[in-house]
Amino acid sequence: MKVKYLCVFILSCMSLTVCFGKTIKHTVNTNAVERWDVFEVTVKGKTAGNPFTDYTISGVFSSGKETKKADGFYDGDGVYKVRFMPSYEGKYSFEITGSAIDGVAKGSFQCTAAKPDNHGPVRVANTFHFSYEDGTPYYPFGTTCYAWTHQTLELQKATLETLKDSPFNKIRFCVFPKNYPFNQNDPYTYPYVNTRVDGPIKSNDGWDFTRFNPNHFQLFEKHILDLMALGIEADIIVMHPYDCWGFSRMSIAEDDLYWNYVINRFSAYRNVWWSFANEYDHMESKTVEDWERYAVITCRQDPYGHLRSIHNGPHFYDHTKPWITHCSIQSSDMGQVENWRKRYNKPIVLDEICYEGNIFHPFGNISGQELVRRFWYATCLGGYAQHGETYIHPEDILWWSKGGVLYGDSPPRIAFLRRIVSEAPGHGFKTVHKWWDNIAVPDQEEVGSYYLFYFDITRPAYRNFQFDDETLYKVEVIDTWNMTIEDQGIHKGDILVNLPGREYMAVRLTKQ
Amino acid sequence: MKVKYLCVFILSCMSLTVCFGKTIKHTVNTNAVERWDVFEVTVKGKTAGNPFTDYTISGVFSSGKETKKADGFYDGDGVYKVRFMPSYEGKYSFEITGSAIDGVAKGSFQCTAAKPDNHGPVRVANTFHFSYEDGTPYYPFGTTCYAWTHQTLELQKATLETLKDSPFNKIRFCVFPKNYPFNQNDPYTYPYVNTRVDGPIKSNDGWDFTRFNPNHFQLFEKHILDLMALGIEADIIVMHPYDCWGFSRMSIAEDDLYWNYVINRFSAYRNVWWSFANEYDHMESKTVEDWERYAVITCRQDPYGHLRSIHNGPHFYDHTKPWITHCSIQSSDMGQVENWRKRYNKPIVLDEICYEGNIFHPFGNISGQELVRRFWYATCLGGYAQHGETYIHPEDILWWSKGGVLYGDSPPRIAFLRRIVSEAPGHGFKTVHKWWDNIAVPDQEEVGSYYLFYFDITRPAYRNFQFDDETLYKVEVIDTWNMTIEDQGIHKGDILVNLPGREYMAVRLTKQ
Repeated sequence: MKVKYLCVFILSCMSLTVCFGKTIKHTVNTNAVERWDVFEVTVKGKTAGNPFTDYTISGVFSSGKETKKADGFYDGDGVYKVRFMPSYEGKYSFEITGSAIDGVAKGSFQCTAAKPDNHGPVRVANTFHFSYEDGTPYYPFGTTCYAWTHQTLELQKATLETLKDSPFNKIRFCVFPKNYPFNQNDPYTYPYVNTRVDGPIKSNDGWDFTRFNPNHFQLFEKHILDLMALGIEADIIVMHPYDCWGFSRMSIAEDDLYWNYVINRFSAYRNVWWSFANEYDHMESKTVEDWERYAVITCRQDPYGHLRSIHNGPHFYDHTKPWITHCSIQSSDMGQVENWRKRYNKPIVLDEICYEGNIFHPFGNISGQELVRRFWYATCLGGYAQHGETYIHPEDILWWSKGGVLYGDSPPRIAFLRRIVSEAPGHGFKTVHKWWDNIAVPDQEEVGSYYLFYFDITRPAYRNFQFDDETLYKVEVIDTWNMTIEDQGIHKGDILVNLPGREYMAVRLTKQ
Repeated sequence: MKVKYLCVFILSCMSLTVCFGKTIKHTVNTNAVERWDVFEVTVKGKTAGNPFTDYTISGVFSSGKETKKADGFYDGDGVYKVRFMPSYEGKYSFEITGSAIDGVAKGSFQCTAAKPDNHGPVRVANTFHFSYEDGTPYYPFGTTCYAWTHQTLELQKATLETLKDSPFNKIRFCVFPKNYPFNQNDPYTYPYVNTRVDGPIKSNDGWDFTRFNPNHFQLFEKHILDLMALGIEADIIVMHPYDCWGFSRMSIAEDDLYWNYVINRFSAYRNVWWSFANEYDHMESKTVEDWERYAVITCRQDPYGHLRSIHNGPHFYDHTKPWITHCSIQSSDMGQVENWRKRYNKPIVLDEICYEGNIFHPFGNISGQELVRRFWYATCLGGYAQHGETYIHPEDILWWSKGGVLYGDSPPRIAFLRRIVSEAPGHGFKTVHKWWDNIAVPDQEEVGSYYLFYFDITRPAYRNFQFDDETLYKVEVIDTWNMTIEDQGIHKGDILVNLPGREYMAVRLTKQ
């Protein structure tokens, strides 16, 4: 077989500047990549016809510990890319093949140890919780900015600045632009090429759903990396119904082309999660068969098994489906967390529980107190809640959709809760019931090491806790809103804790 | 047949002072009684053996419009009483018979027109609502003081003073004394005679469940009349589980004797409602068969068909039972009101929705805001809510059980809501759904005359309402907590209402 090397560039995504929005030039061959970082192979390939549909490109990456096939994608200007995330340290070899190129492109690289902030992709751990692949617990404290990557570069930058100082370690956002109240501006880029010469851009005319706009995806994956640098998981919403361009009503072939493209492009980023949809059930042209087909594509094309979920409008998807790794739930009925855990036996992530704000939509006008209350309630039941903010703004820049700046009261309190959760022994909470309390305790430990009593809107002036006469507990009264922790000393036996008779208090008892 | 008049006194309960705690002396024969007042016949009868069990006494009362049989009761000191509530104006004749007396006692009286404040007993009206028998709408705004009649006379008086200036027109309270946290004092009177000579009173020893203590019942019915004078319905809790004397664990025969005694004694008071139990399902010695037997007794012995309900602990009684006139519900899940209306097709009275207070029990430590929120929410869904208050007190005098003084923030706001409900056209609310709103509208009127939008904890900064270009609406912004009504004028078409972005707001639109 005649082997021909065709313009092979080997790049590590550690050298970020070369990856986005620029024509790739000949560069140095960085032949080392960090574990769980992106190793990217760029090849020049065929351009006749439609390179997005007419050719294939894929790679096989092997070390002594794993062999993985990863399909690549066309990135415009005759450039094809194949990306790979190595899961082990050591030497990897690879071969790139496909109808896009003549012959085989071969090479090798060294996978080095992960740096301290790189813990690998997030996995489900202990049934109801998450950890990074290196075993470090990961507690999701997410936020939602559906269309932040579709705003001006200046606003995108502001969003990243805000995220940097926020408590959030996960963000939900859409590949496709969004058309919805407060979201009437044109997106910064479009995912497809439009062939019309004039006419309104907010129209489903003229789109060629077989020709992606590489700039759109380059910008998007730059932001995946920006988030990675901030330690934030990118919970990518692949489809959504809030569309005026036809992106939500493409044909089966067009949908599948899109899903393959998205999964092939983004899978190698370790901080990617696949959120199949925002409110799948509002996408009236899609059936369960469609969603199940997307699941097949995702499971096949993503060699790393990133987390997969599907977010509901009025009706839950069937979260028992084996491809769903965790429940992504829209509901304000926090009290159901325990039932959902029992029903689905998966992590319960309450990705939408109404937003702090004052818009007229009821999903977007609860107080900071109420949002923080829902976080605490869901957390103490062994679930995970997600933030969003929707304060009206003279330029319609609402965090929930466009990002920008946070105005609300909840983020510092969410940071405080994240601290409380991180300080708890074990790995995540479950609830035990005693008398009328739902008490958060470590999910995998014997009950007795730690108790977190959250009193929610109830305002007891005192509480008694009964223990034996030997076990000592450190007693702390937590004001979840004012973010104070009052040390009430070490006690045993019948412990009386005086409380201020205010809402949103908690008591933490830690075995000594 | 030999007819013998045996010391027949005819009293109207309008002359209240002769009815309670005093030995009845020969009095004038007040041979006129107001419609829906109590006409009472007192006879001296047999005392050998046990007059509570060994003899019968009953009356038949006839006018041209009704003939009713009413059983009487033994009131101690050789006195038997038969009470009757006439439902029509005009001349009534009566005959008293039974084994307690020799022969028949006969007489007649005139039933006069009801005075302006006397509207008769409360009935179910329009399926989900209530009205007095004269057709005047009755909107229950109740409170709970379980054991107020068992406290000192001074405290009883204070409770009545508080009620006088309160918004409450219904009160739930128990015939039997209560033993529960914050309720550890001895009751002022006991319902039964105790035959022990010594030993603790808080014991189930020595009680003779076949011998009532007339003083206890005389005091109780004095309070029914006190409430009547204040325009307050007496929602009498016949049984409850919080007992250390054995009153909740009597035999079938003892129970039935008690039920007959209570119903025979109290039925003639027009403001009586029968609450079969507080938390029936916590009375472990009672079965559904027992409750159904009490229902048979109640329906048979109460000639007036007073309202009947049964209040739950964790589990609802089957409110579809035909003897249940309305659902008496303990739940904090206000949002279910509409479902319960559909399920039971009866008025939904949320008799226990947690209390304003700060005790450690979670049923008794919500804020005034939260209690008022629950009132508004339940009301706008077409139900009725009930108040209670449980602030810790140096002498354990908590309103919810003992009465006394109200300390909370909710009563004036409940008065404000009662005003809003009373001002609405029609007779009671139902909910219509539009977009994401639950909107209270008059239950029996064509939609369009009146809308009450309650925003609960949501805080929209504005709302649009779309109407046609002809219909004029008066627009008012209601602050349900600060009790203000802001008139925003008369509008039509697309109406924009600016709101303050606070919780607990409402908008009232009234067709002009």
